[in-house]
Amino acid sequence: MDAVVLSEDGSPRLVDRPRPEPGPGEALIRVDRVGIDGTDREVLDGVHGGVEASMVLGHEAVGTVAEPNGTGLDAGETVVPTVRRPPGAYNEYFRRGEPDMAPMDETVECGIDGADGFMAEYVAVPSEYLVPLPERLAPYGFLVEPLSITAKALELAEASREPFAWDRDRALVLGTGSLGLLTLPVLAERFDEVYCLGRRDRDDPAVELAIEAGATYVDSRETPVAEVSEAYAPMDLVYEATGHAPHAVQSVSALAPNGVAALLGVPEPHTAEVDLADFHRELVLGNRAVVGSVNAGYTHFERAIEWLDAMPESVRSAFVEHVYPIEAFEAALDSDVIKAAVELDP
Amino acid sequence: MDAVVLSEDGSPRLVDRPRPEPGPGEALIRVDRVGIDGTDREVLDGVHGGVEASMVLGHEAVGTVAEPNGTGLDAGETVVPTVRRPPGAYNEYFRRGEPDMAPMDETVECGIDGADGFMAEYVAVPSEYLVPLPERLAPYGFLVEPLSITAKALELAEASREPFAWDRDRALVLGTGSLGLLTLPVLAERFDEVYCLGRRDRDDPAVELAIEAGATYVDSRETPVAEVSEAYAPMDLVYEATGHAPHAVQSVSALAPNGVAALLGVPEPHTAEVDLADFHRELVLGNRAVVGSVNAGYTHFERAIEWLDAMPESVRSAFVEHVYPIEAFEAALDSDVIKAAVELDP
Repeated sequence: MDAVVLSEDGSPRLVDRPRPEPGPGEALIRVDRVGIDGTDREVLDGVHGGVEASMVLGHEAVGTVAEPNGTGLDAGETVVPTVRRPPGAYNEYFRRGEPDMAPMDETVECGIDGADGFMAEYVAVPSEYLVPLPERLAPYGFLVEPLSITAKALELAEASREPFAWDRDRALVLGTGSLGLLTLPVLAERFDEVYCLGRRDRDDPAVELAIEAGATYVDSRETPVAEVSEAYAPMDLVYEATGHAPHAVQSVSALAPNGVAALLGVPEPHTAEVDLADFHRELVLGNRAVVGSVNAGYTHFERAIEWLDAMPESVRSAFVEHVYPIEAFEAALDSDVIKAAVELDP
Repeated sequence: MDAVVLSEDGSPRLVDRPRPEPGPGEALIRVDRVGIDGTDREVLDGVHGGVEASMVLGHEAVGTVAEPNGTGLDAGETVVPTVRRPPGAYNEYFRRGEPDMAPMDETVECGIDGADGFMAEYVAVPSEYLVPLPERLAPYGFLVEPLSITAKALELAEASREPFAWDRDRALVLGTGSLGLLTLPVLAERFDEVYCLGRRDRDDPAVELAIEAGATYVDSRETPVAEVSEAYAPMDLVYEATGHAPHAVQSVSALAPNGVAALLGVPEPHTAEVDLADFHRELVLGNRAVVGSVNAGYTHFERAIEWLDAMPESVRSAFVEHVYPIEAFEAALDSDVIKAAVELDP
C-alpha cells in the first residue's frame, strides 16, 4: 500500500508498505484524508523530538473502518484517530484517559514523534483511540484533530476563569494559520467580538476567511500585539496559535483584567529583554492567567466534532478546498493555502 | 480616639481623630488588633497607587462589634473586615460579590489605596464587609486577611487544573515573609511534600517556623528557583509571595508537567534578558499555567477562618508573638519579626 514516510535525508517520500494486520483490540482503518499543518512541517524540519527515519507522516486523519476485527466498531463507520499512544507500556495518564496530560517522555505521538502516523492507505488502530464521526462530516474529518486542540485549550482557559463571573466580551486569535482560522468561528459563537491578528495583506484569502468567520482583522505590522489593547480594546481571551516565543509575554499585555491567554504554539529559540515587573504586575493586579496546552484527549475530539457540525458551511468549506491526491503529497506539504490535505484512494 | 495615619511627609503618625458615626447599614467596630505586612511598608514607601496623606493605615484587622446599629450583628461579636470598597458608586463587581475581581480603577482598598484603613480605635464598616469570627480565634484574627489572599490564589490555581487529575505531590512557596509562612501549613495539608525557598540562614526564626510547619527549607543563595526542580524535584504548585519580578518566569521552570504557578507579590521595576522560547515551550508542552491573584472576597475570608481554626497551635502561635501596643506603632512597622501587629486598647 502507499505510505508517505520521512526518509533518512529528512525529506518525505511515497513508499510501498505492507498493509498492517490489526492485532487484538485493533481495527483496520482505510484512511480517507489526512490534513497537513505546521507540526508536519516542523517534523520535516527536524524541530520535533525523536525524528525517526521511515516514520509514516500525518496526524490529522479521517478514515473508514475496513475490518472491525471484533472491536465493536461497524465496517464502513467513519472514524477519526487520536494522536497519542503509550510509549510501550501503559502508564497512569493513558489509564485514566488523559494521554494529552502525559509528560512528553511518557507518550509517543503518531506521525510526530515515536510512532507511525496516518498518511498511508491503511492503519491498524486500537479502538479506544478511534472517535466515531457522523458520515456527513467525513469530507471535513481531518479538521477534527486541530479543532480538538482548541477544545482542550479552551477547556483549560475557561476552567481557570471558572471561580468568578468571567466576561466574554472579546477574544483575540494570534495567527492566521489553519489552527487560528479554524478557531475563529468557535470563538465567534462564544464571545461578543472576535479579533484575528496576523501579518498578511487584507486581500489574502486567509484574511478574507477570518472576516467571513466573524473576526475583525488586525495587521500586526500596523498594530503589534502589545498595542492591540489600546488600539482596539483589551481582550478577555488571547489564543496564541503561532508559536512566536515573545507572545507568551506579549499576550498578557493584550488582556483585560481577569483575562486569560492560552498558548498552543511550539516556539523556535528566542531570547529578548523583557520588562518582567510589568508582566508580573499585570498578572497579579489584574487577576490574569496564562495557560499552556498541548494535544487533546478523547472528549476534546468529541467536542470538536460538535463544533465542526455547527460551523457555518461558508467557513467550513474553505478548509477543504485544497485536497491533493496522495501522489501530490509534496505539493500538499509545501502548499501555502489556508489548509491542505491529501486524499488516499485505495 | 487614636489612629495611625500616613502623614504628608510619608511617615506614619499617631493622631487623635473623632470616633466615626456609623451610617445606615454600618456597624461601629472596636478594633482589637491590626497585622502589618509588606503591603503596609509599600504604602509607606509610596509604591502603592494613590497614596493619600492622612489615610488611616492597616488592612489586616480583627475587632468587636461595639454598636450593631441595626445591621443584625450582635454587640460583642468578633469580626474581620474585608479590604475593598466601591469607589463611590457600586459597580458590577461589588454587586455580584466579587470585589476582588474589580480592576484596580474600580475599587478602593482600605488602608492601601483610596480609603481609610483599620489602625484606629473605632471604624464604621458596612455589615456586608464584616466576616464573623469564632471568639476563640480573636487573638489570631488579624491573620484572616492574609490567609484569605492564599484562599483566593489557591482557588484560582486549583480551578486551572480542574479539567484533569492534578498531582498534588509537591508545592513550593517562594519567600519567607509572613504570607509565605502562613501558607505553608495550608499547603502541608494538601500536598505530600512542601518546600519553602528563601534567603535566610537556617537558624533564622522564619526558617525554623517553616520547618515546624512541615516544609523543607531551600536556601536560594545555594539553590536558585530555576535549579529547584533538578536539585529537589519538580513542583506541582509554586506559590510566589515575594513580588520579585523574575519569579513570574522562573516559577515555571520549577514546575512539573501540568503544574501551576500562583503569583501574588507586586514587583518593583525589573527588566532582564529572558529565554522566551524556553518559557513558552515549557508552558505549552508541559500543560503548565501561571495565575495572578490579588485581594480576596468574602468566601475566601470564610475559608481562611476554617484554615486558621485547623492550623496547628505550634505554628499559629508564632504569628502572634509580636503584638505591640498602638503607641509602639513605629517599632511594629519597622519590625523584622515573623509577624508584627499592633493592639488597640480603648
